[in-house]
Order: sequence, then structure tokens, then C-alpha cells
Amino acid sequence: MINVGIVGGTGYTGVELLRILSQHPEVNIQAITSRSEAGMDVTQLFTSLRGHIDLKFSDPAESKLDKCDLIFFATPNGIAMQQASALLRAGIKVIDLAADFRIKNVTEWEKWYGMSHASPELVAEAVYGLPEINRDKVKDARLIANPGCYPTAVQLGFLPLIEAGIVDTDRLIADVKSGVSGAGRKAEVHTLFAESSDNFKAYGVPGHRHLPEIRQGLSTIAGKSIGLTFVPHLTPMIRGIHATLYAKILKDVDLQALYEKRYANEPFVDILPVGSHPETRSVRGSNLCRIAVHRPQNGDIVVVLSVTDNLVKGAAGQAVQNMNLMFGFPETLGIRHAPLLP
Amino acid sequence: MINVGIVGGTGYTGVELLRILSQHPEVNIQAITSRSEAGMDVTQLFTSLRGHIDLKFSDPAESKLDKCDLIFFATPNGIAMQQASALLRAGIKVIDLAADFRIKNVTEWEKWYGMSHASPELVAEAVYGLPEINRDKVKDARLIANPGCYPTAVQLGFLPLIEAGIVDTDRLIADVKSGVSGAGRKAEVHTLFAESSDNFKAYGVPGHRHLPEIRQGLSTIAGKSIGLTFVPHLTPMIRGIHATLYAKILKDVDLQALYEKRYANEPFVDILPVGSHPETRSVRGSNLCRIAVHRPQNGDIVVVLSVTDNLVKGAAGQAVQNMNLMFGFPETLGIRHAPLLP
Amino acid sequence: MINVGIVGGTGYTGVELLRILSQHPEVNIQAITSRSEAGMDVTQLFTSLRGHIDLKFSDPAESKLDKCDLIFFATPNGIAMQQASALLRAGIKVIDLAADFRIKNVTEWEKWYGMSHASPELVAEAVYGLPEINRDKVKDARLIANPGCYPTAVQLGFLPLIEAGIVDTDRLIADVKSGVSGAGRKAEVHTLFAESSDNFKAYGVPGHRHLPEIRQGLSTIAGKSIGLTFVPHLTPMIRGIHATLYAKILKDVDLQALYEKRYANEPFVDILPVGSHPETRSVRGSNLCRIAVHRPQNGDIVVVLSVTDNLVKGAAGQAVQNMNLMFGFPETLGIRHAPLLP
Amino acid sequence: MINVGIVGGTGYTGVELLRILSQHPEVNIQAITSRSEAGMDVTQLFTSLRGHIDLKFSDPAESKLDKCDLIFFATPNGIAMQQASALLRAGIKVIDLAADFRIKNVTEWEKWYGMSHASPELVAEAVYGLPEINRDKVKDARLIANPGCYPTAVQLGFLPLIEAGIVDTDRLIADVKSGVSGAGRKAEVHTLFAESSDNFKAYGVPGHRHLPEIRQGLSTIAGKSIGLTFVPHLTPMIRGIHATLYAKILKDVDLQALYEKRYANEPFVDILPVGSHPETRSVRGSNLCRIAVHRPQNGDIVVVLSVTDNLVKGAAGQAVQNMNLMFGFPETLGIRHAPLLP
Repeated sequence: MINVGIVGGTGYTGVELLRILSQHPEVNIQAITSRSEAGMDVTQLFTSLRGHIDLKFSDPAESKLDKCDLIFFATPNGIAMQQASALLRAGIKVIDLAADFRIKNVTEWEKWYGMSHASPELVAEAVYGLPEINRDKVKDARLIANPGCYPTAVQLGFLPLIEAGIVDTDRLIADVKSGVSGAGRKAEVHTLFAESSDNFKAYGVPGHRHLPEIRQGLSTIAGKSIGLTFVPHLTPMIRGIHATLYAKILKDVDLQALYEKRYANEPFVDILPVGSHPETRSVRGSNLCRIAVHRPQNGDIVVVLSVTDNLVKGAAGQAVQNMNLMFGFPETLGIRHAPLLP
Repeated sequence: MINVGIVGGTGYTGVELLRILSQHPEVNIQAITSRSEAGMDVTQLFTSLRGHIDLKFSDPAESKLDKCDLIFFATPNGIAMQQASALLRAGIKVIDLAADFRIKNVTEWEKWYGMSHASPELVAEAVYGLPEINRDKVKDARLIANPGCYPTAVQLGFLPLIEAGIVDTDRLIADVKSGVSGAGRKAEVHTLFAESSDNFKAYGVPGHRHLPEIRQGLSTIAGKSIGLTFVPHLTPMIRGIHATLYAKILKDVDLQALYEKRYANEPFVDILPVGSHPETRSVRGSNLCRIAVHRPQNGDIVVVLSVTDNLVKGAAGQAVQNMNLMFGFPETLGIRHAPLLP
Repeated sequence: MINVGIVGGTGYTGVELLRILSQHPEVNIQAITSRSEAGMDVTQLFTSLRGHIDLKFSDPAESKLDKCDLIFFATPNGIAMQQASALLRAGIKVIDLAADFRIKNVTEWEKWYGMSHASPELVAEAVYGLPEINRDKVKDARLIANPGCYPTAVQLGFLPLIEAGIVDTDRLIADVKSGVSGAGRKAEVHTLFAESSDNFKAYGVPGHRHLPEIRQGLSTIAGKSIGLTFVPHLTPMIRGIHATLYAKILKDVDLQALYEKRYANEPFVDILPVGSHPETRSVRGSNLCRIAVHRPQNGDIVVVLSVTDNLVKGAAGQAVQNMNLMFGFPETLGIRHAPLLP
Repeated sequence: MINVGIVGGTGYTGVELLRILSQHPEVNIQAITSRSEAGMDVTQLFTSLRGHIDLKFSDPAESKLDKCDLIFFATPNGIAMQQASALLRAGIKVIDLAADFRIKNVTEWEKWYGMSHASPELVAEAVYGLPEINRDKVKDARLIANPGCYPTAVQLGFLPLIEAGIVDTDRLIADVKSGVSGAGRKAEVHTLFAESSDNFKAYGVPGHRHLPEIRQGLSTIAGKSIGLTFVPHLTPMIRGIHATLYAKILKDVDLQALYEKRYANEPFVDILPVGSHPETRSVRGSNLCRIAVHRPQNGDIVVVLSVTDNLVKGAAGQAVQNMNLMFGFPETLGIRHAPLLP
């Protein structure tokens, strides 16, 4: 049993962490902080958790986070980098669900995120928490950079192709669609129901912050710099990421076998049978990534379809998966929920 | 550990039973039958369950249902009444999620359901499986008539008022809204996405099959015949029932205290604080019924708001709650899922 | 041809006015003001209008509204009451789509709207712009209080019953459901897609600003004070109001004939055949109100179903209908759009 | 004024034709046929059209289609090819909204559509009704093959690039998303609200019938055979197509200028300013195609975003545009509706 704290728990990754952790057999939620809602019952904000959690939001200053074994940052970008250092010095592990430690090149990070990095010295140490790639490093980590939602779905989809060295990595294309919860629980006009329902649009085509993160991950796998066109879209659903990935095949291999073999021992990656089309709802509320691989008309373009729940495998679920690894629990403990369908 | 079978598992109550039972610690799913899909992997139809269940649909004739301790009927109306008798004789308990055993007056049933009843002698024996009213009878039952989705939300909402005898029961009004999954997984034009999305309508105002069921339940509570206007509506969401109930108050009591006291020991009924408005999403995927009670402008009309997930507390979850009671398991075993929000 | 101005055109009633007026054969849109967006092309904010309108938002101070024959206020509550007086003195007519002039009792208005009224002397003069009740007064009006969305659907639904004096007006019940656009184009958490999609809830049960407006309207029709329980709900669709109305019948009449006769000459009220259930989508984008009247099981409760598009008959369309009447144009000119279905 | 008939008017293209034609100043709708609904008022099926149309569905055999100047086929594939010949001989023009005459290579057509072609001799004569490419031919045509919904959005998006010869046409990629109305008004499980709401999926990746149609169109433009990967997706909205198109740039040109110039005189194609992301709702209910062109990070991949309303520019609206051209009416007559937003 470990004690955990959540910093900044009023957003969607926060409530999702609470949903998962409140049912995790090895976790005691010690504190959840929110400057704006300090003193309020968590269940007043998130009625869904009545009966599952009995905790008030607390002011960060008075939260006794130092009694915790692990702190999750479910904050906006730029917060964890200010507090991680002190926590680590106190022997407390940290998982940042925001982007502060995801990009190794600090200059690149500062360009995309528009701020100076407060603890560049920790960036090198931080482990990028995609267990399917970095499982062993995660086990030994003190500080985890939990991957973004788009990067998780895209990297898991491209991974076997790039590891096998069978596609042209100069012109990868990732056409990705996200549910609206990916934009967070901030009051903004463009994510209002009356704006984003019954509507579909691309956004960020000139450049999106997840582009450098994906590019870094795929380049690491490839062992060289890759080229990627990344187009995110907003689709009128609450949860779900659907990545449609395109690459030019350079070498003939059995794609289905390649994917099945690569992920044979992965508890959270499911390769669907030949000819399948994964649906986002088939992973709703679960930590799964389901993937299908196609080669239309037997041409030289491979099409990979990869779906996740952006709040689970794309955020809170993956964070708990990392936690399990860091503390020696079974990797799937507390995150084996069956998807909710319909 | 008990062995259970599911007859007719290709609809939404079927997949929801599978989701819940596959994670229930005391249940082994022995067989799931479907004439039309016999031989097909369950996960081919319901991809969401890949990794959670490993079973094929079987032909009812070859399903060895006689090896089961309990059979759930997740069939259309009119099937369970033909098979229950033989199962009961073989010592197997039965929970019917359809309507075959819900109405005690067989003539009334035949009028509303448009068929002759195949085993009227079992109707008297069947226990109406609303644990909040019939808990003790459920424990001893061989045959459960699992309540309808609308009737569950409406009866739990009106119950304290009628038991207390403080409202005019001659003109109760139940204005109820359901998600589209309530119409089942049948291919029909009016429940197509392009027909029922971005749309709202009432239906069945002249008469709906849940009217006699609710009327019977409330009359039993009242100890006399009650009068009810019941208007169901279709609302563009997948899951959820929202009942808005109106009654004229005859006697002044503390309504909030009345509700809190009545449900103080009920694990699945949650009375919200004064002034609340329950949302259907606050119970999504859970077996909870959340209720708020209002007396607008301190007038003589009480307004009760009652929400459930129609597939859980309104169907499969309540069936498992009944199963737990029948077999002496803790009542909440395997149905304590936290709601999925957002 | 008249010149019109729109004050505050960045919300949904603003863009809907633009959609309708840009296609109206007798209207020249002279100016549309917005303090925050002054100088921006209207089509930059509302891409849908590219090719239909060529206008910039202008600062109210520089908008030459005095060149207009008519000003529409599509502003938040509390703006029109500050500016109407000067405009009227300059001979310019005014239609306020907000609530400033809807409630005749200024004290009551101030209680519900939480501010002092800036021009109480105009309240008496203002004509409540529901043409089906006040057509002749509208024709002669200088200042129109355009009805709220809920009040339009509810009053048109109850009107024939109350005029005929055949229902108990002490305990009318209006259970009303609105699409999310009714909440406006303000950035707020509870109307985010991820909050209000796949969800249903009541709100404002203790009291909603449209309650006194409806009560005033129905009391005027009844010639005495009526009693009303009004429960609004938020439903996950963009446009549409569905009012489900309940009243106790005191006298036996042919309800269908009553409704058909009352609205026989109304171009925008459509009484559906016996047994119908109007859908909100059947009026989407149109100025129609469709109504069905039921008497379930031939009991003593009448159920009326009334649907409108909250942005058209519930706001901008009704405003243009009033404009047509005020300026002697055919009442239906420019607002005969066929509904968009599916 | 011309007399038109509609064969098969009970689907979404049928009701959309009715919506548009009932408001068209030069059209008299003479007959609308439906074998299954013969004798029923059109407005009984499509309540939205009450007050806008007064017509019954008629049996094809008794419909006096020979009194018409033009027949629209809004039928499933395989009907128009059986009846077009006799109509043309009688001097009646024909617009087929289905696929019977779209593919010039009859063998190819028969492979994709799984039936023998009943009038291959007409295939050569039929004009592919994309006015932006074939305007002059459309004017003189007797028989129009109205383009598919996906093909319209994709071809208009790629057209300027291919005409200009500046992209690699061997590996074009079209990642396209459609609203659910594109699947038609057929009762099918996968398009039920509870299946396709809050969900996103690709389908038809191994091959979709619109692939050969798009390939033929783009090859004709290119003057040589092109290579295309086409991935359609189902997105939870009613109307709308969003095509995201990718091509490798071979020659440096001002892409924005290229697009603006190509479509400068096209009334229904709107090139958005640099940096824009068109939304499907910005064309809802209108005959417009809005396009934005991007070159992310100034690399060698061009990304084109192209949106249409699948039922208007992708079906009924384009059919009326073709009708206008065939009969010498102004091209935009009756199809200048402003989009419905929100």
C-alpha cells in the first residue's frame, strides 16, 4: 500500500486518476490539491465519485504531500517543472501527466511551449513513460514524463514498422482524430457543445505540440531523424483517439505477424485480426490500445489503425501503469476495467 | 463460485451482463446462447470484451444450460415464459430481464404485450426484483422478474412519498427521458444515428408497456390503486434514464429527511444534497440511482429527479444485484464500478 | 427596404439574425456592433456566412445606428434598457431579444434579474412580441420585448386550453427540454461538449427566469393568476425546445378540434394529426411551432407536446416575424425556410 | 418552369431533393414514387415538410413520369440503369444520384457493384456531373451521373494540384470522414445511435466503391493513371464530409494563389484564407465546398482540407446545380441557402 497525492485534480485527467486510484487495491489517496477549490468536497465537483471517495481538495501549501510515496501532476504545463525537484529530493517519486519533461531538447521544448524551462537538469533524468518501449527504465525511474494522448496512439501504431526498418521514415503521415475531452475541462468557446457537436474539423495543421514529441519518439526508435506530417482533428465524441497512419513500404513482410509478434506479451496492446477496423468505443474507459494493420489493394502503402481512450491509455491509465511498474506491483493491477460498450 | 448461463446474449443487456459477470469474483459464465450467432466468438460481435471473455455463442439446444446454477434471460419478451418452467424443475434459478413475469394480472399482461402467456402459473411465484422493496423475497426466490428501466427509476423516485402517504396518488406524473440504448440493439429506422441524434421527442403517450408495470408497483406500495400519467421521451444519448416526477403534497414533511432516511441503508440509492440536480452521466456504467427532491417556491408540488443507467440499475446490474441476494453473496459484489465521467 | 442594425451580434441569436436577415428581400443590414470584435469581418467569426454577408463588426460608438429604421438587441440582459430610450426618441424602432422589457412588474423583474431597471417607464409601453397573442399590438409597436425560448413553446402549447377555460390553472406543469445553444455562446464549463454530451439533467428547479415570464403570459390569457411548476432540462442537442405540458381537464371538449381551430390561421403554428409526437428536428432551422395534443387513456390529464427551434421561433425568427408586422411586410416574408432534416 | 419527378424518394437524398426543389422557383414537383409507401402523404414520412409540400408517394407504375421534363433517381444502385433508357427515348432528361453511370469502365463497375450493368450503352453517354470540371458537358447532357459524396470533396480538393502538375500522383492519400447520414436511411445495426454515437472508426480500408470513382476522376484530370490510398471513416455527426488530403509536392508554387485562381469563378467552391481549418458545420445545409490548403513546416507535403455537406454538394444540391445547368437556369438558382450554424 502506497500513499499518493494528486496535484491539480480538477481537470479530466484528475477525475480519471481518482476513478482509477479509488479502486486500486494498493493505493491510498492521501491528498488532492486545487488552489481554486481548496476546502470543497471532491464529490461536489465530481458527483460521479460519491460513495467512492471521501476527500476534500486541499490547498497545495497545506497538503502534506511530503507524506506521499508518489505525486501525480495533473496540472497545466509548467507546474510540475517547478515542484518536482523538491519532491524528488525528499525521496518522493513523481509522474507528470503534463508535458514538462517529455521533450529532451530543452530549446525545442521552450519553443513549442512558449516558456522557459524551470528545471532543465531534470529533463535528462526523466523517463518517457511508454512502457511498451521503456518498461525497464520506468521500473527504476524517480521521475516519469507521462506521454501525450496523440503520441501514445501514434507511437504504438508505428512502432513495429519502424523497429523492423521496413518503411520509408522520411514521409510518415499521422491523421489523428480526438474526442473533445482531449481539450480539457477549460471553459472555451470552441469546445462548447453547440460549437463542436455535429461538426468535424482539423486544427493545428501548421504545427501542434505533440508533433515534436512524436517525432522524438519515432526518431529514437528509428535511430535516425524521421519526417512526419501530423494532422490532429476534433471529432464530436467525449473520449477516444483514432490514429490513421500511412507509410510507404520498402520491404515485403507479413505485417500481421510482425504486429502480433511485437505485442505478444503486451497486456495493453491488442492486435485485431486481419481486415479489422477498431472502434474507439471498444476501448472506452479502458487502458487498451487496439490496432489493425492493412495493406490496401496490396499496394505499397501500409495503413495502421490505432485506437485508445485518451483519458486512460492516453493519460491517467498509463500513469497508473507506470506507477505499478515503479512500485513493483503487477503491471495490470487496478487497470483491467472492461471497456464500456455501448 | 456459481455457474451461470445467458440466454440471448446479442443485445445490449446481454453485452452488459457479460461486462459485469466477466469481472464478478463468484461467477463462471458457462454458456451464452444465440440461435443466430451460434459458433461465433463473443468477442467478434463485442470487440470491447477481447481479453475479458473467451466464449462462443452456442446454440440453445446444445448449451448444457442444465449444468448452470442460474440462467439469465436477456431475450425479447415471450421467450423466458416458454423455458423457465423446465429450468426451475431442474433446480436451476432464473432471472428474466424481459417482461414475461413482471405483471401479476395475466390478462393485463396479455393485453399490453399482445400474446398469450405460456406459463401463467409461474407469474404468481415470480418475485419482482426491485431489492429496495422486495429484498427478502428476492433472497428466497427461484424466479425473478427483473424490473424495466423506466419502472426502476420511477418507482425508486416515488417510493418514499407514497410509503409516507403524503401525496395525492390519483394524479401522479412521470415525465421520463431515456437514452437510445433503451430501444435495444435492433436495426430500426427511428433509432438510427441520423434520425435520433440532435433530436428530442416523446413517444408512446397514448400508452407504453411500462405504464402498467409502474402502476402495479406504486399501487402495491400505496395499498390502493394509483393514477399515473407516464410520458417517455427519447433523448440523444447512449445510456441514462432521467425521471422527473410530480405529485401534489397533502401533508407537510421534511422531504429531504424523508428520502435520506428511507434510503439510508441502500447501497445503490444515493440521495443528493438539497438543491441538487442529478445528471445521468453521474451514474454512467454504475448500478446507482441518484435522487434529488425539490419543492419549488415552497408550493404544493413536489418535484423528484431520479437518474439511473438504463443498462445497469435498469437492467443487467440490477439482475446481478438480485443474483447476489439469491446466492448469498454480498449484495454489492462485482457491481461497485465507479461511474465513467466524462 | 429598411435599414436595420444589430447590437451585440457575436452570440447565437446574433448569427441567426444574420442568417435570416441576409436573405430577407426587404432588409439592408446597416451595422452590427460588438465592442470586443470591432473591426473584424463578421465572416471571420462566422465562417458559415462567407458569401452571404460582407460586413465588419463595428464599435457601438461609431456605428451610425441612427441611420437605421430598426435596431435588434441581441445582447445580454441589461443592455437594451440603457439604449432603447434614445433610439426611440430618434424615431428608431427597437426589438429586444433579451429580457429587459418582458416582465411588466418591474420589481419582479429586478428580483429575478438581479439589477435595477434603467428605464422602467418603457416597460409599460413595450409590446410582448408573441404574434399569436399580440399581433395587432405588435403592428403598432415602437418597442418589442421578444419572448424567451421556453416561454414561446410553453405559451403556444397551453394557450388554447386556457383561453377555452377548460383546465385547472392552479397546477399547470411544464416539463421542458432545451438544446444546449439555449445557453448561448459563452465559455462555461457545464456547456462544454465533454460535460453536456451523452448526458441529461434538469436545472433551475428552485426557480428559473422564464418562470415569471410564462406565468405572466398565461395569467394574462386566463384573466387571473395561474399556478405553474416549470422544470427546464438540458438535452444533448444543439437546437430545439420540447415542452411537455400537463393540465387537469375540467370540461370535456374535442381537444384536437380546439387546437386546430385556434391556430387555423396562424402561419407558424402547426397542429399535428391525432396521436402524433412532434420531433424537435421537424422544425430545425425554421420558424415553426408544431404541437400535438393527447389525452392518455381518456383520463382527466391533457398532455400537450410543443416543439420549436429555440434560435428561430424562440428568438431570431420570431424577432423577424415581429419586424415584418411592424413594417407592414407580409408576416412570413423571409422566414419560410423549410426545416433541415436529417 | 419545368416538371420534375423523383423516383425513390424515401431516403435522405430524396427528402433533401424535396426540401430544395419545393423552394425552387422554376420547378414543379410532379411526382415522387415509392413502391413501399405508395399512397402515403410525403409529410407523414417527413414531418419537416408539412406546409412546404403537398404530395403523396405514388406507385412507379402509375406515376405519369412521362409528363416530366426531368427525372431524378434517388434510388439504390441498380435501378436507374433499368429505367433510364426508356425515359431518354421519351425525351425526358435523367439525373441519377446513385452510382449506375459513374464508372466508365463497365467491367470495373460490375466488379465493385456486384451486378451486371443493364444498359452499358448509356454509360459512355452519361456526363459525370461535377460542374467545376464538366460544366459545358453538363449543359448539353441528357443523362447525368451525379457524383458520390466522398468523390466530390476529394476531387475538388485535389483538382488544382493535379491540373497544375505539381504533385506526385503515384501516392495520393485521402483520409476522409463522413457523417452518418452518408450511410442512408436504411435500418442497420452499425448506424444505430447507440452504436455510432460517441464512437469513431475507419471502414472499407481494403476497398470502397468510391475508390474507383475518385481514381477515374483524378486520372482524367491528370491525363494518366494516378495512385490513391483512400480511407473513409464514420464520425458521429449527421451531415458533413471532411477530406484531409496529402500529396508530395514536386514543384514550388504559391499554393494559396493556385487554389484561389482555379476557383475564382466557382459559385460553390470557397477557398479560405491562409492558415484556416474549415469546419463541416460551416457548410451545413448548403451547396458549398470550403477548402484550405496548408504546407506544414514548409516541408514537401501539401495538406488540403475540404468540407462539404454530403447531402447537398455531395448529393441533392449538386443534382439541382446540374439541373440548373441542363435547363438554362442561373446555376445558383434555389441553392443559395445560408448554412445553418450552430
